[in-house]
Amino acid sequence: MPSISRRGKTMPQSPIRKLVPFAEAALKRGIKIIHLNIGQPDIKTPKVALDAVRNNTLEVLAYSRTEGSETYREKIARYYAKNDIHVHADNIIVTTGGSEALSFALGSIADNDDEIIIPEPFYANYNGFANATGIKVVPVVSNIENNFALPPIEEFEKLITPKTKAILICNPGNPTGYLYTKEEIKKLAAIVKKHNLFLVADEVYREFTYDNREHHSILQEEGLEEHAIVIDSVSKRYSMCGARIGYLVSKNKEVMQTALKFAQARLSPPTYAQIACEAALDTPQSYFDDVKKEYEARRNLLITELSELDGVVVAQPQGAFYCIVQLPIDDADSFARWLLEDYNLDGETVMVAPAAGFYATDGLGTNQIRIAYVLEKDDLKRAVHILKEALKAYVL
Amino acid sequence: MPSISRRGKTMPQSPIRKLVPFAEAALKRGIKIIHLNIGQPDIKTPKVALDAVRNNTLEVLAYSRTEGSETYREKIARYYAKNDIHVHADNIIVTTGGSEALSFALGSIADNDDEIIIPEPFYANYNGFANATGIKVVPVVSNIENNFALPPIEEFEKLITPKTKAILICNPGNPTGYLYTKEEIKKLAAIVKKHNLFLVADEVYREFTYDNREHHSILQEEGLEEHAIVIDSVSKRYSMCGARIGYLVSKNKEVMQTALKFAQARLSPPTYAQIACEAALDTPQSYFDDVKKEYEARRNLLITELSELDGVVVAQPQGAFYCIVQLPIDDADSFARWLLEDYNLDGETVMVAPAAGFYATDGLGTNQIRIAYVLEKDDLKRAVHILKEALKAYVL
Repeated sequence: MPSISRRGKTMPQSPIRKLVPFAEAALKRGIKIIHLNIGQPDIKTPKVALDAVRNNTLEVLAYSRTEGSETYREKIARYYAKNDIHVHADNIIVTTGGSEALSFALGSIADNDDEIIIPEPFYANYNGFANATGIKVVPVVSNIENNFALPPIEEFEKLITPKTKAILICNPGNPTGYLYTKEEIKKLAAIVKKHNLFLVADEVYREFTYDNREHHSILQEEGLEEHAIVIDSVSKRYSMCGARIGYLVSKNKEVMQTALKFAQARLSPPTYAQIACEAALDTPQSYFDDVKKEYEARRNLLITELSELDGVVVAQPQGAFYCIVQLPIDDADSFARWLLEDYNLDGETVMVAPAAGFYATDGLGTNQIRIAYVLEKDDLKRAVHILKEALKAYVL
Repeated sequence: MPSISRRGKTMPQSPIRKLVPFAEAALKRGIKIIHLNIGQPDIKTPKVALDAVRNNTLEVLAYSRTEGSETYREKIARYYAKNDIHVHADNIIVTTGGSEALSFALGSIADNDDEIIIPEPFYANYNGFANATGIKVVPVVSNIENNFALPPIEEFEKLITPKTKAILICNPGNPTGYLYTKEEIKKLAAIVKKHNLFLVADEVYREFTYDNREHHSILQEEGLEEHAIVIDSVSKRYSMCGARIGYLVSKNKEVMQTALKFAQARLSPPTYAQIACEAALDTPQSYFDDVKKEYEARRNLLITELSELDGVVVAQPQGAFYCIVQLPIDDADSFARWLLEDYNLDGETVMVAPAAGFYATDGLGTNQIRIAYVLEKDDLKRAVHILKEALKAYVL
């Protein structure tokens, strides 16, 4: 029997996926599960986007342009301009989800054995894309005590080697909810310019910022044109995770020409989804205002409720819709499994994402979980109550 | 300015893409272009698929399952059973196009610097996927004189090294239109078993076989269960290139578990497209019969017309909808460009794909072009006439 590749063997499994069999077994036993583990919003997709697909008159579902149509990319450029980010249609490639944008970016800037520095905890799938392309993730630790603020620049500089090609950030952060300040972005800009690195920013949660905080894009930073590469996605912005549409955005022409060659190999992004997404750009501002208000209320409720639990430390998220929660337990993997296998409160339990999978450093995050607040407030409240009672039962 | 990666620099450009600026310039001069260069069928997408999307009642365009829904994969398994290919839903992962299925397969079975043997000429984008993952393509030459039949097994064996992980075929072939016989598939099966390699078959043109020939899938070959990996796609089957839905199919459990981890990193295939594709499986047989009849008639016309041209050699395609044509010229790249830049017959010219991009060996295919017969018969006839007159003018 022929053997699979080394990279296949080291490909990480999603931290949530491991729990799925236990969740399925719980459902079979009649247990109801409140899902705190996934970033699939319950928010409705804008009607204008859904209608555009329902009313389409295509007779041949043909390839689209590799980089997305001219009109769509021009409309995206106008979306960015409204957000005070000034780019041209030529600075944008439409991709199959933010995932593909990241793959193209990594492939274009780093080779096998090259290194990318990422503040941890970080979106677990970065590990997967790095592993698939043979790139080494070098983590720089951020702490729950600091609310996961940007680690000191010296910590980055200690890690830079001749193989370092880029710093990758997620802003606002999944799983931390941390929103980098303008000053932090400037610090990162200075370091990538000094060491001639790329700065890749996953800004898919751009719109989700709370407490009247503003998002600062790396594309707004002057003098960073040749360094800045933005990963974007419509998934969370319009509650269109199933569209699988994202963007790669950069003013570095060589990067864009290179990424386009990666894009050509896979021909084009999905056509129906582009119809939906082009229409989604006409979503009225009131939709976003309402969504943001809703997430902010959910966050406030969640943080308040969690803060009242004994021995629980929770970072204050300023954006996105996740938070990292430190629990008075040893091993969140076992606890998450136990919640599904052995625990229920009146026939109900919660599913959480153990946080160790969001760290690259072994042994970090083992007593932490990630919670996604993409549920109605009543469900969130009940979920925290279940968590509270479960912690009592587990610790005993 | 930070520099792009080596793999970015060596990423091949699509052989057609280079011609696009010249085509655009010709259009601006008012020249009409008949496109013999692309595999975008003009055939209508089955109504049942288009209607399913128009009638969808989604309110949240959510992620689908990473591997495609259980019901969809079961329906795909029934499609295979109808084609005498017996697989279970668990042997199938739904991917974003055949392209992604190939990426997952290559990533799962080969590491950086490993080798894959491919009979050339081959689908140009195989070079792109291999380059992106650091895998070396080792070509084994097939010839137009032999109609691009499978090269002798000794030619494969000469190329096998400890780094060889797989043989990759496209059956029926793009760009050759060659359909491997049952005997040829058995020869390939013997060699991969002997040398403990994977056999990857791109079978996206399965339905398009002519002269009452039957397609033999590597999945039908007994004893090949642990070696066989099939790449499939709905793009050409239902004229749904823009769906971006494909399948990875294998009975090798380790391969499937590994590919699933690659799939998890990109979350899920596009949701709307899966709605269309699940419905497309209900397309009546008459649709395929009509389409096949139409392509066979186009092929017959094209080959007859081309055979009458002086100095032109054309392979007889038995499947798919491409053929390689050898022209009495030195350099098909220059000729293809000249057709767009300097030639027209009554205001009309043709765009062809220079074949060198379908070869990995330098210097091969330089006097060949690929023609896709995805046009109405009248257009095809006129295109060959233009080609004939153009050759006279070019050679003079």
